[in-house]
Amino acid sequence: MDKSKQTNLKTLAKELNLSISTVSKALRDSYEIGQETKNKVKALADKLNYEPNPFASSLRRKQSKTIAVIIPEISNNFFSLAIDGIQVIAQEMGYHVLTYLTHEALVNEISTINHLRNGRVDGVLISICSENGNNSHLSVLDEIDIPVVFFDRVYEASSFAKVTTDDYESGFKATEHLIEAKCKRIAFLFASKHLSITNKRMNGYINALEKNNIPFDPRLVVECNNDNDQSLQIVKDFLLSDNRPDAIFASIEKLAIATYHVCREINIRIPQDLKVISFSNLRTASLLAPPLSTITQPAFEIGREAASILFRQIEKRDLKDYPDRVVLKSTLIPRESTFF
Amino acid sequence: MDKSKQTNLKTLAKELNLSISTVSKALRDSYEIGQETKNKVKALADKLNYEPNPFASSLRRKQSKTIAVIIPEISNNFFSLAIDGIQVIAQEMGYHVLTYLTHEALVNEISTINHLRNGRVDGVLISICSENGNNSHLSVLDEIDIPVVFFDRVYEASSFAKVTTDDYESGFKATEHLIEAKCKRIAFLFASKHLSITNKRMNGYINALEKNNIPFDPRLVVECNNDNDQSLQIVKDFLLSDNRPDAIFASIEKLAIATYHVCREINIRIPQDLKVISFSNLRTASLLAPPLSTITQPAFEIGREAASILFRQIEKRDLKDYPDRVVLKSTLIPRESTFF
Repeated sequence: MDKSKQTNLKTLAKELNLSISTVSKALRDSYEIGQETKNKVKALADKLNYEPNPFASSLRRKQSKTIAVIIPEISNNFFSLAIDGIQVIAQEMGYHVLTYLTHEALVNEISTINHLRNGRVDGVLISICSENGNNSHLSVLDEIDIPVVFFDRVYEASSFAKVTTDDYESGFKATEHLIEAKCKRIAFLFASKHLSITNKRMNGYINALEKNNIPFDPRLVVECNNDNDQSLQIVKDFLLSDNRPDAIFASIEKLAIATYHVCREINIRIPQDLKVISFSNLRTASLLAPPLSTITQPAFEIGREAASILFRQIEKRDLKDYPDRVVLKSTLIPRESTFF
Repeated sequence: MDKSKQTNLKTLAKELNLSISTVSKALRDSYEIGQETKNKVKALADKLNYEPNPFASSLRRKQSKTIAVIIPEISNNFFSLAIDGIQVIAQEMGYHVLTYLTHEALVNEISTINHLRNGRVDGVLISICSENGNNSHLSVLDEIDIPVVFFDRVYEASSFAKVTTDDYESGFKATEHLIEAKCKRIAFLFASKHLSITNKRMNGYINALEKNNIPFDPRLVVECNNDNDQSLQIVKDFLLSDNRPDAIFASIEKLAIATYHVCREINIRIPQDLKVISFSNLRTASLLAPPLSTITQPAFEIGREAASILFRQIEKRDLKDYPDRVVLKSTLIPRESTFF
């Protein structure tokens, strides 16, 4: 079928200079839309022989009893714990869970979201990938017109509900913890500048330095990436440079693990030569050599909370009562890697 | 609706004393079924007003382009890597992946499999839970009449394809590795005696002892369970008893982690006082204090292989050509925890 010949919500919206969501609501006779707009939309829909996607409508009526969870990766303690939390609620509610992995690639995130157009799911939980993009594909989620909840890695500009942790406060606390351990040259390691969680954690870091009268040195902010081998090399080059820090604050777990590997390789002693703290849900943090100080996010609870909000929206209970934003607290657990 | 009043394939099969699969094939006019049987089945179906499940049939025709993956847990490095492998193939093939977690509970496994009756998926990948059961619920998978592949934790009696690792050989090698490190009292820790992988690993352990003329002592075979706190206590009681071993071979990763925690608590030095080796996909194995010797399963490859076989069956390519059983090799990686 020639797609360009098909009339869909997008065609109607473009023609009428309205949002897709308005067109969709007008066709469903929503009380939110004025009669004049409804008449205009319906007239054009008739003229262009608009047919709603039958599979989508059928499932919209019957409910698919399925939700989608879109996450960057699964071999990651944070996300596997969050999924555990989501599954507990889904099982209670009698829903199936479709899990999609984007592997941090925008192209996969786009194709996954486009897949969902066909009405296969009643709701979406999403933690966005770290690759740069203009986020325009996320507007498809508005268009599909089903409940969506962002968790952890959220798209701040979106109107959907968001469940996060106190990333700014945790970034601030982790940095102050290192300052209390007499560190002067504290580095901040991150993997993606496109994520709001990265920026919040970094702002916490910068403000904690400022509050403690430690000049901010941009050369101590080190960008790694999602490739483990490349990140190892970046951390190694950094620790071998003249610009060597006396502490590392890793904004994600895998950069702390990279730091440990590099320190072992080039004989930097933790914590004597370098103190390390990291955002992490690693179950073996206390068994590492030395035990790793962590900012531990309540990953299971984030999943549970995001799923609860989604199901309240899907089942339309407490229609006006579900929160737009939930912020859960992370915990700083000091261990030997920051002893002084 | 009163379910007992509904006529389904099971009712017909019971009434006619035929298998559900035969009834299903008869109703679909399969060449595999004789005309007489077809007539009998169709007559009874008419008499009892049998209606095929419309959702199931519609999807059977259209294909749901979805597979189900049923696993015990996800915050486990083995399963999260296996899922990564499955997802790679599913994305290549353009399929969606429904992930179900049984949390090691038979009741969840049964309800998940029953959920799949409605034709929601084109195929199933399953790694069974560790709870005891007579496995009768697994026959539902035969009844649904779609491709199924077991991976890692397989049900040996089933006729479906199975992808596993060389558990017996790995159990044997791990034990010989400890014997070479001069250990005489080697304990075997496990969590579920109902899994064939446990038994294979234990048989490898027993035969390696025998081959090396070390008498098998059943008091050194210690049953733990899936509750972390309970397992910690069992390992602690064991290591504090008169029956203390000089080495531990943990058949699953979480029991090695429990052993490390206990040794730290009661001041047993690894490897001086106790050597430890474990089946494990822990990414931090080399960073632990001390680094943990592991038998590492090719988890990603197991997932990829199981998914490949499933899709070849779903798409009916090479109809007689897909293997019944694939056994992949694990790798023994010696580290400090078994140094002598």
